[in-house]
Amino acid sequence: MPADSLYPPFLKHDWISRIDGDALLVTDRRKLPFVHEEVCCRSTEEAAAAIREMVTQGGGPLETALNAMRLAYRRGEDLDYAASLLSSSRPTNTTMARTLKALLADYRKGRDFEVLIDDAFAYYDDLYDAVSDIGAGIIQDGDGILTRCFPEHTFMLSVLKAARSGKDVSVFVPETRPYLQGARLTEPSLRALGIKCFLITDAMNAHFMAEGRVTKVMTASDLALLDRTIVNKVGTLSDAVSAYYYHIPYYAFSLSFDESRTKADIVMEERNGKDVKNIGERAIADENAVALYPSFDIIPPELVSGIITKDGVL
Amino acid sequence: MPADSLYPPFLKHDWISRIDGDALLVTDRRKLPFVHEEVCCRSTEEAAAAIREMVTQGGGPLETALNAMRLAYRRGEDLDYAASLLSSSRPTNTTMARTLKALLADYRKGRDFEVLIDDAFAYYDDLYDAVSDIGAGIIQDGDGILTRCFPEHTFMLSVLKAARSGKDVSVFVPETRPYLQGARLTEPSLRALGIKCFLITDAMNAHFMAEGRVTKVMTASDLALLDRTIVNKVGTLSDAVSAYYYHIPYYAFSLSFDESRTKADIVMEERNGKDVKNIGERAIADENAVALYPSFDIIPPELVSGIITKDGVL
Repeated sequence: MPADSLYPPFLKHDWISRIDGDALLVTDRRKLPFVHEEVCCRSTEEAAAAIREMVTQGGGPLETALNAMRLAYRRGEDLDYAASLLSSSRPTNTTMARTLKALLADYRKGRDFEVLIDDAFAYYDDLYDAVSDIGAGIIQDGDGILTRCFPEHTFMLSVLKAARSGKDVSVFVPETRPYLQGARLTEPSLRALGIKCFLITDAMNAHFMAEGRVTKVMTASDLALLDRTIVNKVGTLSDAVSAYYYHIPYYAFSLSFDESRTKADIVMEERNGKDVKNIGERAIADENAVALYPSFDIIPPELVSGIITKDGVL
Repeated sequence: MPADSLYPPFLKHDWISRIDGDALLVTDRRKLPFVHEEVCCRSTEEAAAAIREMVTQGGGPLETALNAMRLAYRRGEDLDYAASLLSSSRPTNTTMARTLKALLADYRKGRDFEVLIDDAFAYYDDLYDAVSDIGAGIIQDGDGILTRCFPEHTFMLSVLKAARSGKDVSVFVPETRPYLQGARLTEPSLRALGIKCFLITDAMNAHFMAEGRVTKVMTASDLALLDRTIVNKVGTLSDAVSAYYYHIPYYAFSLSFDESRTKADIVMEERNGKDVKNIGERAIADENAVALYPSFDIIPPELVSGIITKDGVL
């Protein structure tokens, strides 16, 4: 069964990014779910800029970079340069960078570049499938799961598989300001899969734990270190701390560990405070306000109950 | 010195609500800081509706209800009915209801009604002054204070007095979705007082504690019980839990305890999830999403380091 058929619309390969002739079309996630617009990238530079400007987020940059590399190859560009340009567009989440590095290493061993790209897509489809088998097994009948941001394939498939196996499961989705990925991407995706879900504001995490309605916290991870430190969207630390206080387990999904990094090496994206002062084009605060926007939280190992990988829960 | 001169603009009496002839004009806090519009209430029913519809919030309903009672008196209305109508417009925060009840009891003892209203305003000005003397004393040089929602007079004056006494103090202001009181009211008010402040999104509480930049949590309270249970804007529990984990004190300001209630009696306002799906007039989620909007958190005594009152820290 093609993996795509299981995915909610926003996670289908063509809805993330697709090649059309010599152009790379990247779905503008900032505008979903209201309009489906694609940003057209005619060079590797433009593809890197689209990633940097948050046209695509979460796991989107990985697929977008693979497509961009395919086009760079077809255009006869310097592939090392293309890979470094793309990798630098998202410094905290290193999955894309590590994938492109491995891709180039394999290519130098004489393998066909386009087949390697196909294999990379297939590898991730299989990985999502394997990781979500483990995730689905952890979800118990009656669970209310708090997530954060847009936890994409691994989480979505885990919940879907748990629900299909007859477990009653509901998901609490924080809207995830400033980009509102929770409100715009996660909630419609879960609903498209037929999963019961509730949209909440970002600081209601402890509220629903205290009420006993949230029984698990499960998020994606932008980075997982070997010591079990997790890096994920800002707000996840608040979730994990609250879960710890209420004796609720916190699980992070990980496609792979970054074995080359320690906590000291984490490159933390500090985004523009302007994003906090606006919602889309609309100002919600005075223009003279000083706003802070650290993109990510670092969740220390003592708050992480387990990391869900293809090989099981670590 | 008239207390009003110390208050930031949005907290000056006339900026909360004022009497103009036979009309009560209530500043529409939902539109601040962008426009200063007043909702005109020509009856007690309209005043109660304005409070219910969140035209004014926090301490605003108290002053608005006092003004509404003055007009009800002038119109020769049934004052018990007027008081019960106004009191029922805000069931969780009982300060207004208790103030109106005491007012009517004093009136029945033969005192002049309009003088009683004047006295009630003066009483709260004095109370804000006394409570904020205690609050300012708790703030230490170098403190970074996380607050929540719009903590109004007691907190604002505490920070102002601390700053004026030479203490270096900064405030982290969560935007406080869905109504954005933090972004729209608290941040501009602190800035108007010359206080250093940072606007953040709602779930960044733990982030800045982990970084060591937040050293205290201080909020208003919508309700304080004798057993030290605090009721305040949803999100405060997340703040208090995070503070507890990071060994940071959480203080709540209280004008008075509700001695008549226990935790079991708390009337919890569950507002319309539609507010979560919109920001002002703008939809941020699909209209078919199911959103939850519990207005308040209940913070248990074990998470409360102290309640700041006019008589000291309890």
